[in-house]
Amino acid sequence: MAEAAIAQAAPAAIGDSEFDRDTAVVLREPGVYDIGLSAGWTILGAVNGGYLLAVLGRALADALPHPDPFTVSAHYLTASQPGPAVVRADVVRTGRTLSTGQASLFQYDDEGREVERIRVLASYGDLDSLPEDVRTTARPPAIPPLEHCFGPEDGPGPLAGDSAITDRLMIKLDPATLGWALGAPSGKGEMRAWFGLADGRAADPLSLLLAVDALPPTAFEMGILGWVPTVELTVHVRCRPAPGPLRVSITTRNLAGGFLEEDAEVWDSSDRLVAQSRQLARVRLG
Amino acid sequence: MAEAAIAQAAPAAIGDSEFDRDTAVVLREPGVYDIGLSAGWTILGAVNGGYLLAVLGRALADALPHPDPFTVSAHYLTASQPGPAVVRADVVRTGRTLSTGQASLFQYDDEGREVERIRVLASYGDLDSLPEDVRTTARPPAIPPLEHCFGPEDGPGPLAGDSAITDRLMIKLDPATLGWALGAPSGKGEMRAWFGLADGRAADPLSLLLAVDALPPTAFEMGILGWVPTVELTVHVRCRPAPGPLRVSITTRNLAGGFLEEDAEVWDSSDRLVAQSRQLARVRLG
Repeated sequence: MAEAAIAQAAPAAIGDSEFDRDTAVVLREPGVYDIGLSAGWTILGAVNGGYLLAVLGRALADALPHPDPFTVSAHYLTASQPGPAVVRADVVRTGRTLSTGQASLFQYDDEGREVERIRVLASYGDLDSLPEDVRTTARPPAIPPLEHCFGPEDGPGPLAGDSAITDRLMIKLDPATLGWALGAPSGKGEMRAWFGLADGRAADPLSLLLAVDALPPTAFEMGILGWVPTVELTVHVRCRPAPGPLRVSITTRNLAGGFLEEDAEVWDSSDRLVAQSRQLARVRLG
Repeated sequence: MAEAAIAQAAPAAIGDSEFDRDTAVVLREPGVYDIGLSAGWTILGAVNGGYLLAVLGRALADALPHPDPFTVSAHYLTASQPGPAVVRADVVRTGRTLSTGQASLFQYDDEGREVERIRVLASYGDLDSLPEDVRTTARPPAIPPLEHCFGPEDGPGPLAGDSAITDRLMIKLDPATLGWALGAPSGKGEMRAWFGLADGRAADPLSLLLAVDALPPTAFEMGILGWVPTVELTVHVRCRPAPGPLRVSITTRNLAGGFLEEDAEVWDSSDRLVAQSRQLARVRLG
Protein backbone atom coordinates (compact mmCIF):
# COMPACT_ATOMS: atom_id res chain seq x y z
CA MET A 1 0.00 0.00 0.00
CA ALA A 2 2.62 2.50 1.07
CA GLU A 3 4.96 1.54 -1.74
CA ALA A 4 2.13 1.93 -4.20
CA ALA A 5 1.41 5.42 -2.87
CA ILE A 6 5.03 6.40 -3.26
CA ALA A 7 5.26 5.06 -6.77
CA GLN A 8 2.05 6.71 -8.00
CA ALA A 9 3.68 9.77 -9.58
CA ALA A 10 7.04 10.07 -11.25
CA PRO A 11 9.52 10.88 -8.49
CA ALA A 12 10.80 14.43 -8.28
CA ALA A 13 14.42 14.82 -9.34
CA ILE A 14 17.27 16.11 -7.20
CA GLY A 15 17.53 19.79 -8.06
CA ASP A 16 13.91 20.00 -9.21
CA SER A 17 11.84 19.19 -6.14
CA GLU A 18 10.02 21.11 -3.43
CA PHE A 19 12.90 20.43 -1.01
CA ASP A 20 15.38 21.89 -3.50
CA ARG A 21 13.23 24.92 -4.23
CA ASP A 22 12.55 25.58 -0.54
CA THR A 23 16.23 25.37 0.43
CA ALA A 24 17.46 27.46 -2.52
CA VAL A 25 19.55 30.37 -1.30
CA VAL A 26 20.04 33.43 -3.51
CA LEU A 27 23.46 35.06 -3.51
CA ARG A 28 23.07 38.73 -2.61
CA GLU A 29 26.79 39.46 -2.34
CA PRO A 30 29.80 37.26 -1.52
CA GLY A 31 28.98 35.30 1.63
CA VAL A 32 25.43 36.66 1.97
CA TYR A 33 22.41 34.65 0.85
CA ASP A 34 18.72 35.48 0.92
CA ILE A 35 15.99 32.91 1.36
CA GLY A 36 12.32 32.78 2.17
CA LEU A 37 11.79 30.11 4.81
CA SER A 38 8.88 28.06 3.59
CA ALA A 39 5.81 27.48 5.77
CA GLY A 40 5.76 23.99 4.25
CA TRP A 41 8.39 22.66 6.66
CA THR A 42 6.82 23.70 9.95
CA ILE A 43 5.83 21.57 12.93
CA LEU A 44 3.10 23.20 14.99
CA GLY A 45 4.10 26.59 13.55
CA ALA A 46 7.87 26.36 14.14
CA VAL A 47 10.21 25.79 11.25
CA ASN A 48 11.81 22.33 11.44
CA GLY A 49 15.43 22.34 12.58
CA GLY A 50 16.53 19.81 9.97
CA TYR A 51 15.12 21.91 7.15
CA LEU A 52 17.01 24.93 8.53
CA LEU A 53 20.18 22.86 8.69
CA ALA A 54 19.74 22.00 5.01
CA VAL A 55 19.34 25.70 4.17
CA LEU A 56 22.58 26.52 5.99
CA GLY A 57 24.26 23.48 4.46
CA ARG A 58 23.34 24.69 1.00
CA ALA A 59 24.79 28.16 1.59
CA LEU A 60 28.01 26.60 2.88
CA ALA A 61 28.23 24.28 -0.11
CA ASP A 62 28.21 27.42 -2.25
CA ALA A 63 30.72 29.29 -0.09
CA LEU A 64 33.23 26.45 0.36
CA PRO A 65 35.38 24.76 -2.28
CA HIS A 66 34.22 21.27 -1.27
CA PRO A 67 30.69 20.08 -2.10
CA ASP A 68 29.59 17.79 0.74
CA PRO A 69 28.95 18.37 4.45
CA PHE A 70 31.14 15.94 6.43
CA THR A 71 30.40 17.35 9.89
CA VAL A 72 28.03 20.17 10.75
CA SER A 73 27.61 21.51 14.30
CA ALA A 74 24.61 23.75 14.86
CA HIS A 75 23.68 25.75 17.93
CA TYR A 76 20.03 26.80 17.91
CA LEU A 77 19.56 30.27 19.38
CA THR A 78 15.99 31.42 18.73
CA ALA A 79 12.98 29.83 17.03
CA SER A 80 12.65 30.45 13.29
CA GLN A 81 9.42 31.53 11.61
CA PRO A 82 8.36 31.15 8.00
CA GLY A 83 9.37 34.21 5.97
CA PRO A 84 12.43 36.16 4.88
CA ALA A 85 15.83 35.17 6.22
CA VAL A 86 19.45 35.79 5.41
CA VAL A 87 22.42 33.45 5.71
CA ARG A 88 25.87 34.89 6.29
CA ALA A 89 28.64 32.41 5.53
CA ASP A 90 32.39 32.68 5.98
CA VAL A 91 35.26 30.47 4.95
CA VAL A 92 37.31 29.58 8.04
CA ARG A 93 39.98 27.42 6.43
CA THR A 94 40.55 25.78 3.08
CA GLY A 95 42.51 22.54 2.88
CA ARG A 96 43.17 19.99 0.19
CA THR A 97 40.63 17.40 1.33
CA LEU A 98 38.59 19.35 3.87
CA SER A 99 37.48 22.94 4.21
CA THR A 100 35.76 24.55 7.18
CA GLY A 101 33.15 27.25 7.19
CA GLN A 102 30.85 29.10 9.51
CA ALA A 103 27.33 30.29 8.79
CA SER A 104 24.51 31.99 10.62
CA LEU A 105 20.84 32.25 9.79
CA PHE A 106 19.15 35.55 10.66
CA GLN A 107 15.60 36.78 10.52
CA TYR A 108 14.24 40.26 11.18
CA ASP A 109 12.52 41.75 14.21
CA ASP A 110 9.75 44.34 14.09
CA GLU A 111 12.27 47.13 13.56
CA GLY A 112 13.96 45.23 10.73
CA ARG A 113 17.01 44.36 12.80
CA GLU A 114 18.66 41.00 12.23
CA VAL A 115 18.03 38.39 14.92
CA GLU A 116 20.28 35.34 14.82
CA ARG A 117 18.43 32.01 14.73
CA ILE A 118 21.17 29.40 14.30
CA ARG A 119 24.93 29.42 14.08
CA VAL A 120 26.88 26.53 12.56
CA LEU A 121 30.45 25.40 12.12
CA ALA A 122 30.95 22.86 9.37
CA SER A 123 33.71 20.93 7.66
CA TYR A 124 33.10 19.96 4.05
CA GLY A 125 34.80 17.45 1.78
CA ASP A 126 34.06 15.35 -1.29
CA LEU A 127 32.27 12.09 -0.49
CA ASP A 128 33.08 10.71 -3.94
CA SER A 129 36.81 11.00 -3.23
CA LEU A 130 36.75 8.71 -0.19
CA PRO A 131 38.20 5.21 -0.33
CA GLU A 132 35.71 2.36 -0.47
CA ASP A 133 37.02 0.76 2.71
CA VAL A 134 34.27 -0.11 5.19
CA ARG A 135 34.97 -1.77 8.53
CA THR A 136 31.83 -1.23 10.51
CA THR A 137 30.39 -3.12 13.44
CA ALA A 138 27.22 -1.04 13.35
CA ARG A 139 24.16 -2.90 12.14
CA PRO A 140 21.02 -1.49 10.50
CA PRO A 141 18.11 -0.95 12.87
CA ALA A 142 15.66 -3.79 13.28
CA ILE A 143 12.60 -2.28 11.67
CA PRO A 144 9.71 -4.10 9.99
CA PRO A 145 9.21 -3.83 6.23
CA LEU A 146 7.89 -0.47 5.08
CA GLU A 147 4.40 -1.81 4.39
CA HIS A 148 4.11 -2.86 8.04
CA CYS A 149 4.98 0.62 9.34
CA PHE A 150 2.63 3.54 9.75
CA GLY A 151 2.42 7.21 8.87
CA PRO A 152 -0.08 9.96 9.63
CA GLU A 153 -2.09 8.98 6.55
CA ASP A 154 -2.65 5.49 7.94
CA GLY A 155 -4.83 6.34 10.90
CA PRO A 156 -5.96 8.87 13.44
CA GLY A 157 -2.94 11.13 13.37
CA PRO A 158 0.22 9.51 14.72
CA LEU A 159 1.89 12.78 13.74
CA ALA A 160 0.41 16.13 14.74
CA GLY A 161 -2.31 16.95 12.26
CA ASP A 162 -1.57 20.61 11.70
CA SER A 163 2.11 20.21 10.86
CA ALA A 164 2.69 21.15 7.25
CA ILE A 165 5.91 19.15 7.12
CA THR A 166 4.00 15.87 7.32
CA ASP A 167 2.70 16.44 3.79
CA ARG A 168 6.24 16.70 2.46
CA LEU A 169 7.79 13.72 4.21
CA MET A 170 7.32 10.00 3.84
CA ILE A 171 7.64 8.81 7.43
CA LYS A 172 6.52 5.30 8.28
CA LEU A 173 7.06 4.60 11.95
CA ASP A 174 7.98 1.22 13.35
CA PRO A 175 4.85 0.07 15.25
CA ALA A 176 7.10 -0.67 18.24
CA THR A 177 7.81 3.08 18.58
CA LEU A 178 4.28 4.25 17.85
CA GLY A 179 2.74 3.71 21.28
CA TRP A 180 2.79 7.43 22.11
CA ALA A 181 0.33 8.12 19.28
CA LEU A 182 -2.12 5.65 20.80
CA GLY A 183 -1.74 6.96 24.35
CA ALA A 184 0.53 4.08 25.39
CA PRO A 185 4.17 5.14 25.08
CA SER A 186 6.66 2.29 25.47
CA GLY A 187 8.75 4.13 28.03
CA LYS A 188 11.84 3.50 25.91
CA GLY A 189 13.80 6.32 24.33
CA GLU A 190 13.54 4.92 20.83
CA MET A 191 12.05 6.08 17.55
CA ARG A 192 12.49 4.29 14.25
CA ALA A 193 11.07 4.95 10.81
CA TRP A 194 11.39 4.58 7.10
CA PHE A 195 12.09 8.03 5.72
CA GLY A 196 11.94 9.80 2.40
CA LEU A 197 10.62 12.89 0.71
CA ALA A 198 6.94 12.54 -0.17
CA ASP A 199 7.49 13.52 -3.79
CA GLY A 200 10.01 10.71 -4.24
CA ARG A 201 13.08 12.92 -4.55
CA ALA A 202 16.08 10.70 -3.83
CA ALA A 203 18.21 11.25 -0.75
CA ASP A 204 21.48 13.17 -1.00
CA PRO A 205 23.86 14.61 1.61
CA LEU A 206 21.70 17.74 1.89
CA SER A 207 18.49 15.83 2.59
CA LEU A 208 20.34 13.76 5.22
CA LEU A 209 20.63 17.00 7.22
CA LEU A 210 16.82 17.01 7.23
CA ALA A 211 16.50 13.29 7.91
CA VAL A 212 18.34 13.35 11.23
CA ASP A 213 15.86 15.80 12.78
CA ALA A 214 12.54 14.95 11.16
CA LEU A 215 11.10 12.11 13.26
CA PRO A 216 8.90 12.64 16.32
CA PRO A 217 11.08 13.16 19.40
CA THR A 218 12.07 10.11 21.41
CA ALA A 219 10.62 11.96 24.40
CA PHE A 220 7.14 11.09 23.09
CA GLU A 221 7.86 7.41 23.68
CA MET A 222 9.14 8.34 27.15
CA GLY A 223 5.73 9.79 27.96
CA ILE A 224 6.74 13.42 27.57
CA LEU A 225 4.38 15.12 25.15
CA GLY A 226 5.58 18.64 24.60
CA TRP A 227 8.11 20.82 22.91
CA VAL A 228 11.66 19.41 22.97
CA PRO A 229 13.73 22.28 21.61
CA THR A 230 17.16 21.48 20.21
CA VAL A 231 20.06 23.26 21.89
CA GLU A 232 22.77 21.82 19.67
CA LEU A 233 22.87 19.26 16.89
CA THR A 234 25.93 17.82 15.17
CA VAL A 235 25.63 15.56 12.15
CA HIS A 236 28.28 13.53 10.36
CA VAL A 237 27.57 12.56 6.75
CA ARG A 238 29.59 9.42 6.12
CA CYS A 239 28.55 8.23 2.69
CA ARG A 240 26.48 9.34 -0.30
CA PRO A 241 23.12 7.56 0.12
CA ALA A 242 21.99 4.99 -2.44
CA PRO A 243 18.56 5.45 -4.05
CA GLY A 244 15.58 4.16 -2.11
CA PRO A 245 13.98 4.85 1.25
CA LEU A 246 16.18 5.48 4.27
CA ARG A 247 15.89 3.92 7.71
CA VAL A 248 16.29 6.34 10.60
CA SER A 249 16.81 5.17 14.17
CA ILE A 250 16.89 7.62 17.08
CA THR A 251 17.91 6.65 20.59
CA THR A 252 17.93 8.48 23.92
CA ARG A 253 19.84 6.85 26.75
CA ASN A 254 20.23 9.68 29.22
CA LEU A 255 17.34 11.93 30.21
CA ALA A 256 18.60 13.85 33.23
CA GLY A 257 18.43 17.31 34.68
CA GLY A 258 15.91 18.46 32.12
CA PHE A 259 18.08 17.61 29.11
CA LEU A 260 18.40 14.59 26.86
CA GLU A 261 20.53 13.51 23.95
CA GLU A 262 19.07 12.13 20.73
CA ASP A 263 21.43 9.92 18.73
CA ALA A 264 20.30 9.38 15.17
CA GLU A 265 21.56 6.88 12.62
CA VAL A 266 20.52 6.95 8.99
CA TRP A 267 20.90 3.83 6.85
CA ASP A 268 20.42 3.61 3.09
CA SER A 269 18.97 0.83 0.94
CA SER A 270 22.46 -0.66 0.50
CA ASP A 271 22.79 -1.12 4.28
CA ARG A 272 25.37 1.64 4.52
CA LEU A 273 25.41 3.88 7.58
CA VAL A 274 25.19 7.18 5.72
CA ALA A 275 24.78 9.65 8.59
CA GLN A 276 25.13 9.85 12.35
CA SER A 277 23.95 12.71 14.52
CA ARG A 278 23.61 13.66 18.13
CA GLN A 279 21.61 16.50 19.57
CA LEU A 280 21.22 17.95 23.03
CA ALA A 281 17.64 18.99 23.68
CA ARG A 282 15.69 20.43 26.58
CA VAL A 283 12.65 18.77 28.05
CA ARG A 284 10.02 20.16 30.35
CA LEU A 285 9.48 17.54 33.00
CA GLY A 286 6.25 17.01 34.92
CA MET B 1 49.10 -0.60 44.36
CA ALA B 2 47.66 1.98 42.03
CA GLU B 3 45.42 3.38 44.72
CA ALA B 4 48.36 3.64 47.06
CA ALA B 5 50.32 5.53 44.41
CA ILE B 6 47.48 7.98 43.94
CA ALA B 7 47.06 8.55 47.64
CA GLN B 8 50.75 9.11 48.33
CA ALA B 9 50.69 12.90 48.22
CA ALA B 10 47.93 15.23 49.29
CA PRO B 11 45.73 15.72 46.22
CA ALA B 12 45.99 19.01 44.36
CA ALA B 13 42.98 21.26 44.77
CA ILE B 14 40.72 22.54 42.01
CA GLY B 15 42.09 25.99 41.17
CA ASP B 16 45.57 25.16 42.47
CA SER B 17 46.81 22.33 40.27
CA GLU B 18 48.97 21.93 37.21
CA PHE B 19 45.85 21.53 35.05
CA ASP B 20 44.45 24.80 36.40
CA ARG B 21 47.74 26.67 35.94
CA ASP B 22 48.24 25.32 32.42
CA THR B 23 44.72 26.24 31.29
CA ALA B 24 44.76 29.71 32.90
CA VAL B 25 43.94 32.38 30.35
CA VAL B 26 44.98 35.99 30.97
CA LEU B 27 42.56 38.70 29.92
CA ARG B 28 44.35 41.11 27.56
CA GLU B 29 41.25 43.11 26.63
CA PRO B 30 37.55 42.23 26.56
CA GLY B 31 37.15 38.96 24.66
CA VAL B 32 40.89 38.45 24.12
CA TYR B 33 42.90 36.05 26.29
CA ASP B 34 46.59 35.18 26.24
CA ILE B 35 47.93 31.79 27.23
CA GLY B 36 51.13 29.83 26.90
CA LEU B 37 50.25 26.32 25.74
CA SER B 38 52.17 24.00 28.01
CA ALA B 39 54.49 21.34 26.61
CA GLY B 40 53.25 19.19 29.48
CA TRP B 41 50.09 18.14 27.63
CA THR B 42 51.60 16.91 24.39
CA ILE B 43 51.32 13.51 22.75
CA LEU B 44 54.27 12.81 20.45
CA GLY B 45 54.89 16.56 20.19
CA ALA B 46 51.34 17.66 19.39
CA VAL B 47 49.26 19.43 21.99
CA ASN B 48 46.38 17.24 23.16
CA GLY B 49 43.00 18.24 21.77
CA GLY B 50 41.20 17.80 25.09
CA TYR B 51 43.63 20.13 26.86
CA LEU B 52 43.04 22.72 24.12
CA LEU B 53 39.29 22.30 24.56
CA ALA B 54 39.71 23.02 28.28
CA VAL B 55 41.67 26.19 27.47
CA LEU B 56 38.90 27.38 25.16
CA GLY B 57 36.28 26.31 27.70
CA ARG B 58 37.94 28.39 30.36
CA ALA B 59 38.00 31.53 28.19
CA LEU B 60 34.32 31.03 27.38
CA ALA B 61 33.46 30.56 31.06
CA ASP B 62 34.97 34.00 31.60
CA ALA B 63 33.26 35.60 28.62
CA LEU B 64 29.77 34.17 29.19
CA PRO B 65 27.38 34.84 32.08
CA HIS B 66 26.91 31.11 32.81
CA PRO B 67 29.69 29.06 34.41
CA ASP B 68 29.46 25.54 32.96
CA PRO B 69 29.91 24.15 29.45
CA PHE B 70 26.74 22.24 28.50
CA THR B 71 27.64 21.58 24.87
CA VAL B 72 30.87 22.48 23.12
CA SER B 73 31.43 21.85 19.41
CA ALA B 74 35.02 22.18 18.23
CA HIS B 75 36.38 22.06 14.68
CA TYR B 76 40.12 21.41 14.61
CA LEU B 77 41.83 23.37 11.85
CA THR B 78 45.61 23.08 12.29
CA ALA B 79 47.85 21.30 14.79
CA SER B 80 48.78 23.29 17.91
CA GLN B 81 52.32 23.55 19.25
CA PRO B 82 53.47 24.36 22.77
CA GLY B 83 54.00 28.10 23.16
CA PRO B 84 52.16 31.40 23.01
CA ALA B 85 48.55 31.44 21.90
CA VAL B 86 45.60 33.78 22.00
CA VAL B 87 41.91 33.01 22.45
CA ARG B 88 39.34 35.35 20.96
CA ALA B 89 35.88 34.82 22.45
CA ASP B 90 32.53 36.39 21.54
CA VAL B 91 29.13 36.24 23.15
CA VAL B 92 26.61 35.04 20.57
CA ARG B 93 23.45 35.09 22.67
CA THR B 94 22.61 35.47 26.33
CA GLY B 95 19.51 33.79 27.72
CA ARG B 96 18.14 33.16 31.18
CA THR B 97 19.25 29.56 31.53
CA LEU B 98 21.65 29.17 28.59
CA SER B 99 24.09 31.43 26.83
CA THR B 100 26.01 30.75 23.66
CA GLY B 101 29.51 31.82 22.75
CA GLN B 102 32.12 31.36 20.08
CA ALA B 103 35.87 31.19 20.57
CA SER B 104 38.94 30.58 18.47
CA LEU B 105 42.45 29.63 19.46
CA PHE B 106 45.25 31.21 17.43
CA GLN B 107 48.99 30.79 17.38
CA TYR B 108 51.59 32.72 15.40
CA ASP B 109 53.46 31.89 12.21
CA ASP B 110 57.07 32.90 11.46
CA GLU B 111 55.98 36.42 10.51
CA GLY B 112 53.94 36.78 13.68
CA ARG B 113 50.61 36.46 11.90
CA GLU B 114 47.80 34.69 13.71
CA VAL B 115 47.02 31.17 12.49
CA GLU B 116 43.73 29.70 13.67
CA ARG B 117 44.05 26.31 15.39
CA ILE B 118 40.53 25.53 16.61
CA ARG B 119 37.15 27.19 16.44
CA VAL B 120 34.34 26.33 18.85
CA LEU B 121 30.69 27.08 19.38
CA ALA B 122 29.47 26.45 22.90
CA SER B 123 26.35 26.78 25.00
CA TYR B 124 26.84 27.30 28.72
CA GLY B 125 24.50 26.97 31.68
CA ASP B 126 24.60 26.32 35.40
CA LEU B 127 24.81 22.61 36.28
CA ASP B 128 23.84 23.34 39.87
CA SER B 129 20.52 24.80 38.75
CA LEU B 130 19.32 21.64 37.01
CA PRO B 131 16.56 19.49 38.50
CA GLU B 132 17.65 16.22 40.11
CA ASP B 133 15.50 14.12 37.85
CA VAL B 134 17.39 11.22 36.26
CA ARG B 135 15.74 8.71 33.92
CA THR B 136 18.61 7.00 32.23
CA THR B 137 18.85 3.62 30.55
CA ALA B 138 22.59 4.02 30.04
CA ARG B 139 24.72 1.78 32.25
CA PRO B 140 28.30 2.34 33.41
CA PRO B 141 30.94 0.55 31.33
CA ALA B 142 31.94 -2.93 32.45
CA ILE B 143 35.49 -2.28 33.53
CA PRO B 144 37.53 -4.20 36.12
CA PRO B 145 38.46 -2.56 39.43
CA LEU B 146 41.16 0.09 39.11
CA GLU B 147 43.83 -2.13 40.66
CA HIS B 148 43.28 -4.69 37.88
CA CYS B 149 43.81 -2.09 35.14
CA PHE B 150 47.13 -0.90 33.72
CA GLY B 151 48.90 2.34 32.92
CA PRO B 152 52.23 3.19 31.32
CA GLU B 153 53.94 2.88 34.71
CA ASP B 154 52.87 -0.74 35.01
CA GLY B 155 54.89 -2.22 32.20
CA PRO B 156 56.71 -1.77 28.94
CA GLY B 157 54.92 1.33 27.81
CA PRO B 158 51.28 0.74 26.90
CA LEU B 159 51.19 4.49 26.20
CA ALA B 160 53.77 6.14 23.97
CA GLY B 161 56.85 6.77 26.07
CA ASP B 162 57.75 10.25 24.95
CA SER B 163 54.36 11.80 25.55
CA ALA B 164 54.56 14.34 28.33
CA ILE B 165 50.84 14.12 28.98
CA THR B 166 51.19 10.61 30.41
CA ASP B 167 52.95 12.06 33.46
CA ARG B 168 49.98 14.30 34.19
CA LEU B 169 47.19 11.78 33.76
CA MET B 170 46.12 8.77 35.74
CA ILE B 171 44.97 6.40 33.00
CA LYS B 172 44.46 2.76 33.88
CA LEU B 173 43.32 0.83 30.84
CA ASP B 174 40.95 -2.11 30.97
CA PRO B 175 43.12 -5.14 30.08
CA ALA B 176 40.47 -6.09 27.52
CA THR B 177 41.36 -2.95 25.50
CA LEU B 178 45.10 -3.14 26.00
CA GLY B 179 45.94 -5.70 23.31
CA TRP B 180 47.33 -3.05 20.95
CA ALA B 181 50.12 -2.28 23.42
CA LEU B 182 51.17 -5.94 23.38
CA GLY B 183 51.02 -6.27 19.59
CA ALA B 184 47.67 -8.08 19.68
CA PRO B 185 44.84 -5.60 19.12
CA SER B 186 41.38 -7.01 19.80
CA GLY B 187 39.98 -5.80 16.48
CA LYS B 188 37.13 -4.11 18.35
CA GLY B 189 36.68 -0.34 18.33
CA GLU B 190 36.69 -0.07 22.11
CA MET B 191 38.87 1.66 24.68
CA ARG B 192 38.04 1.82 28.38
CA ALA B 193 39.94 3.26 31.32
CA TRP B 194 39.86 4.69 34.78
CA PHE B 195 40.80 8.35 34.44
CA GLY B 196 41.98 11.15 36.67
CA LEU B 197 44.63 13.80 36.99
CA ALA B 198 47.89 12.37 38.30
CA ASP B 199 48.16 14.96 41.06
CA GLY B 200 44.79 13.95 42.44
CA ARG B 201 42.94 17.12 41.44
CA ALA B 202 39.24 16.26 41.46
CA ALA B 203 37.22 16.26 38.25
CA ASP B 204 35.08 19.23 37.32
CA PRO B 205 33.26 20.26 34.13
CA LEU B 206 36.48 21.75 32.73
CA SER B 207 38.53 18.59 33.23
CA LEU B 208 35.73 16.58 31.60
CA LEU B 209 36.61 18.42 28.38
CA LEU B 210 40.06 16.86 28.74
CA ALA B 211 38.76 13.43 29.77
CA VAL B 212 36.77 12.82 26.58
CA ASP B 213 39.88 13.09 24.38
CA ALA B 214 42.70 11.72 26.53
CA LEU B 215 42.62 7.95 26.01
CA PRO B 216 44.54 6.14 23.26
CA PRO B 217 42.47 6.14 20.07
CA THR B 218 40.11 3.23 19.49
CA ALA B 219 41.89 2.82 16.13
CA PHE B 220 44.79 1.25 18.05
CA GLU B 221 42.56 -1.65 19.04
CA MET B 222 41.45 -1.89 15.42
CA GLY B 223 45.03 -2.48 14.40
CA ILE B 224 45.68 1.01 13.05
CA LEU B 225 48.75 2.45 14.74
CA GLY B 226 49.18 6.00 13.60
CA TRP B 227 47.96 9.52 13.92
CA VAL B 228 44.16 9.84 14.12
CA PRO B 229 43.61 13.58 13.88
CA THR B 230 40.30 14.96 15.13
CA VAL B 231 38.25 16.86 12.58
CA GLU B 232 35.42 17.78 14.93
CA LEU B 233 34.55 16.96 18.51
CA THR B 234 31.36 17.81 20.38
CA VAL B 235 31.00 17.19 24.09
CA HIS B 236 27.94 17.43 26.32
CA VAL B 237 28.54 17.92 30.03
CA ARG B 238 25.47 16.50 31.74
CA CYS B 239 26.27 16.59 35.45
CA ARG B 240 28.90 17.92 37.84
CA PRO B 241 31.17 14.93 38.59
CA ALA B 242 31.39 13.52 42.10
CA PRO B 243 34.86 13.17 43.66
CA GLY B 244 36.83 10.07 42.79
CA PRO B 245 38.22 8.51 39.63
CA LEU B 246 36.18 8.61 36.45
CA ARG B 247 35.47 5.76 34.07
CA VAL B 248 35.80 6.61 30.39
CA SER B 249 34.50 4.36 27.65
CA ILE B 250 35.15 5.09 23.97
CA THR B 251 33.48 3.23 21.14
CA THR B 252 33.89 3.26 17.37
CA ARG B 253 31.20 1.50 15.35
CA ASN B 254 31.77 2.87 11.88
CA LEU B 255 35.22 3.06 10.30
CA ALA B 256 34.56 3.82 6.65
CA GLY B 257 35.99 5.89 3.85
CA GLY B 258 39.02 6.86 5.91
CA PHE B 259 37.00 8.39 8.75
CA LEU B 260 35.69 7.08 12.03
CA GLU B 261 33.60 8.35 14.91
CA GLU B 262 34.67 8.02 18.54
CA ASP B 263 31.83 8.09 21.05
CA ALA B 264 32.97 8.74 24.60
CA GLU B 265 31.06 8.34 27.83
CA VAL B 266 32.38 9.56 31.16
CA TRP B 267 30.97 8.12 34.38
CA ASP B 268 31.69 9.37 37.88
CA SER B 269 32.07 7.48 41.16
CA SER B 270 28.35 7.91 41.87
CA ASP B 271 27.48 6.05 38.64
CA ARG B 272 26.25 9.20 36.97
CA LEU B 273 26.83 9.70 33.26
CA VAL B 274 28.57 13.07 33.52
CA ALA B 275 29.68 13.64 29.92
CA GLN B 276 29.08 12.32 26.42
CA SER B 277 31.11 13.19 23.38
CA ARG B 278 31.46 12.24 19.76
CA GLN B 279 34.28 13.09 17.44
CA LEU B 280 34.89 12.59 13.74
CA ALA B 281 38.51 11.66 13.08
CA ARG B 282 40.57 10.75 10.05
CA VAL B 283 42.50 7.53 9.74
CA ARG B 284 45.21 6.59 7.33
CA LEU B 285 44.37 3.10 6.13
CA GLY B 286 46.87 0.58 4.88
